[in-house]
Amino acid sequence: MEKVIIFDTTLRDGEQAAGTSLNLAEKLEIARQLDKLGVDVIEAGFPASSIGDFEAVRLVAREVKRPTICALSLASIEGVDRAWEAVKEAEHPRIHVFLSASDIHLAHQLKKSRDEALKMSRETVARARTYVDDVEFSPMDASRADPAYLCQILEAVIEAGATTVNIPDTVGYATPQEFGNLIQGILDNVPDIGKAVLSVHCHDDLGLAVANSLEAVRVGARQVECTVNGIGERAGNASMEEIVMALKTRRDFFELRTNIDTTQIYRTSRLVSELTGFPVQPNKAIVGANAFRHQSGIHQDGVLKKSITYEIMDPKWVGIPASSLVLSKVSGRHAFKERLSELGYTLSEEDLNRAFQGFKELADKKKDITDRDIESLVAEELRTVTEIYHLDHVEVSCGDHNIPTATVRLIGPDGQSLADAALGTGPVDAVYKAINRIVGIPNKLTEFTVKSITEGIDAIGEVLIRIESDGVTYTGRGAATDIIVSSAKAYMNALNRLLAAKKGGSSARGTGS
Amino acid sequence: MEKVIIFDTTLRDGEQAAGTSLNLAEKLEIARQLDKLGVDVIEAGFPASSIGDFEAVRLVAREVKRPTICALSLASIEGVDRAWEAVKEAEHPRIHVFLSASDIHLAHQLKKSRDEALKMSRETVARARTYVDDVEFSPMDASRADPAYLCQILEAVIEAGATTVNIPDTVGYATPQEFGNLIQGILDNVPDIGKAVLSVHCHDDLGLAVANSLEAVRVGARQVECTVNGIGERAGNASMEEIVMALKTRRDFFELRTNIDTTQIYRTSRLVSELTGFPVQPNKAIVGANAFRHQSGIHQDGVLKKSITYEIMDPKWVGIPASSLVLSKVSGRHAFKERLSELGYTLSEEDLNRAFQGFKELADKKKDITDRDIESLVAEELRTVTEIYHLDHVEVSCGDHNIPTATVRLIGPDGQSLADAALGTGPVDAVYKAINRIVGIPNKLTEFTVKSITEGIDAIGEVLIRIESDGVTYTGRGAATDIIVSSAKAYMNALNRLLAAKKGGSSARGTGS
Repeated sequence: MEKVIIFDTTLRDGEQAAGTSLNLAEKLEIARQLDKLGVDVIEAGFPASSIGDFEAVRLVAREVKRPTICALSLASIEGVDRAWEAVKEAEHPRIHVFLSASDIHLAHQLKKSRDEALKMSRETVARARTYVDDVEFSPMDASRADPAYLCQILEAVIEAGATTVNIPDTVGYATPQEFGNLIQGILDNVPDIGKAVLSVHCHDDLGLAVANSLEAVRVGARQVECTVNGIGERAGNASMEEIVMALKTRRDFFELRTNIDTTQIYRTSRLVSELTGFPVQPNKAIVGANAFRHQSGIHQDGVLKKSITYEIMDPKWVGIPASSLVLSKVSGRHAFKERLSELGYTLSEEDLNRAFQGFKELADKKKDITDRDIESLVAEELRTVTEIYHLDHVEVSCGDHNIPTATVRLIGPDGQSLADAALGTGPVDAVYKAINRIVGIPNKLTEFTVKSITEGIDAIGEVLIRIESDGVTYTGRGAATDIIVSSAKAYMNALNRLLAAKKGGSSARGTGS
Repeated sequence: MEKVIIFDTTLRDGEQAAGTSLNLAEKLEIARQLDKLGVDVIEAGFPASSIGDFEAVRLVAREVKRPTICALSLASIEGVDRAWEAVKEAEHPRIHVFLSASDIHLAHQLKKSRDEALKMSRETVARARTYVDDVEFSPMDASRADPAYLCQILEAVIEAGATTVNIPDTVGYATPQEFGNLIQGILDNVPDIGKAVLSVHCHDDLGLAVANSLEAVRVGARQVECTVNGIGERAGNASMEEIVMALKTRRDFFELRTNIDTTQIYRTSRLVSELTGFPVQPNKAIVGANAFRHQSGIHQDGVLKKSITYEIMDPKWVGIPASSLVLSKVSGRHAFKERLSELGYTLSEEDLNRAFQGFKELADKKKDITDRDIESLVAEELRTVTEIYHLDHVEVSCGDHNIPTATVRLIGPDGQSLADAALGTGPVDAVYKAINRIVGIPNKLTEFTVKSITEGIDAIGEVLIRIESDGVTYTGRGAATDIIVSSAKAYMNALNRLLAAKKGGSSARGTGS
């Protein structure tokens, strides 16, 4: 059976979603999970767009050896050089060059003629080939381009050495029938198309990204570019998990396979949601909380009689864990370590000790510790950034007839203890104002959410916040059974990221198809 | 240009999503908004499945006059009678009968032969026609049924009087090409198909519900069943807003129109999300928070130069409001009323007074009052259920080195003042335990989320909780600048619903395709 190459661009196009700000360690953690998941290609970033992207590509290239690591570049010689600089240490490096191909983009944005754009495309692909044998080219906005011109470009870049040519529906405009016809036309009219892998890259503005991608592979495309949870610019990209599970569930129809270990899908989805701070809606296909929940009496009756009456997939296929109560106060270090490894975590001895410490503290407050609690603990313990200010103490009083009042004490950069108090419109506001009095970095809170991560009244409350400073967004997370404490932790987490970024130099953003 | 009938089943299949529990007033509010939106048919419920559903259909039938109001029924004589009883006061009533058609369902769930099922289908459609001229029939699990048998059923029910025949992809199994072929086959092989409207009903288990629906209308179907935000059983139904906006944006391709006022889409999406408690993920097409946000430098540059470079729809088409700061402390009653009406609210004098009171209290705490603040205020003031216990006072102290402690005072059913205190693992836990000491109704907290609904540190925190008692879920919402107060309000809201339900008799659930 023929294989479809899964090209994951969560770290590039996914990270391009408004409000994301993954740091290096988080990008590497996602890349490692994508490796476990079995994706063929990881697009790790757009090196010329920012120092952060450059460093992320370099780190992933160095550390993640099985999959192909891809660096994106605009069709410019300097961009390609920079992409190579970032990706060259990869075991399997790829350079991905893109340039607009539609008249709309050429006329209104690039202000270049078709001939000029074709020349740039050919030259930069050739430049990339001087570095590496694996070169991809994308004519941006292909679905709105003149098909004849598109075929001309594809032939030219294949001649110049492109080994993968990718057709982006950049603005999510195509319908499945149209997009299938476009792919068929390319297969029919580009003489050398057999020398390259034909790929597609779809956006979900009309809710059709997955259908367009599947129609393209049905017709003959053999690489799909997608992201975990379908995150990405605007309405996002084609969702990896939906494409993979459609190909698997309907293998009778598509007769195609992928290299994905589907049992890693759920964990990958959770990790990406947690690190990017983008929730997955309950009715999201494959990975939503309700995707496998049957509510109606008739459906429940059917599933009990025979699951295939209303279930076309087994939740186990995607690695959805049974909601088991696993550990409690009396559980020892060994049981905890065991469970961690079952959940897919491999921790250093030191990290394990910290996480176990957190586990014992939690178990003192909460009777049953679930898998979700453990995930949250690990996130809390292992994903802390280097702290410039450390939260030492927080205390609040509030209510509907009180003026919310907070007292906080931080340990500062030089180890000094700094305390202050403030009033607020609510307890979180009061805590943040008290912290601001100590740290004194101007910023704006743009998002604040709390979620109980497990059932029950004694659940852990996980806080996610986003703050903005000089146009850059910083995410902060905190978890505790006390949501005011979680909120304080989340704010300190975001502030420490902000402070670290101001020290290390900030990053401008800008990227592709 | 031919028209596609938009059949909205948010109140039936959407409400079938695990974790929903809309009360009568909320169902009516959604129905009224669907009327404004311009949907052609509202499926208001499944009267035989529960008393709650029966009452909801009756209420919507009575109150909402322009659209067709549809009641669902299994193919049984009693079910059809009950459906008619519920829907008969509608200006344009419809009865919708369904029965499984796939061998998988017939053998494993219904334990009926094809002939028996066909006979039941025909007889119940005929029964429905004795009541009303507008009768729809759905052969459940049609996409996995034998196409020849399917055509036989459709011919039989059309002969028996069905005026709409609907093809459900009940388990979300079909691909667009297959589903289009199925529709084409029905058009070609059911002799009397021209006497009925051909409809489709798709589920999103593989992420293909919208694509399957669009392919069906391209081939010749003229009714689409869908839900707001795509909510529904499991991964949900085809999303109304994606179908409508695909037909509008790609009118050049589909050459079809709908009756939808697209500028009501955003408001409808928000209302349904708020009342069902199902968040819309930021990368959801059309209505997600990021659907029209451009993050990358290249995309932003393009949009600034000319919006069509990266925008295929104008956010105004779907009624996304500009994020304007509109009111403040000094705004008067008139300005407030004006803004409410611009946002689409028409309040009674008494409700307006309550909402304005809330506005003044909020303006004392918060400098700028945005549209989202106003929406939250109205939700808070107008959607309160009849209170059996009223929250009179709440007060909390907590922190990372304290034992969280709450004091609450409630006004009970007989007007008596009841106060108590409790400790907890966090401040919310403490508040809930103190309330429990007074109210004493056993229940389990299954979900807790807080969202700041506007930007800025003084934002309103909106709390959504779900509690479970005897297998039934109750939702509670609360909003305040103090999230502990919001949490207390949300819990009282859910408890009051629970108490009201226990008084009024509870409801079993069970429904269809």
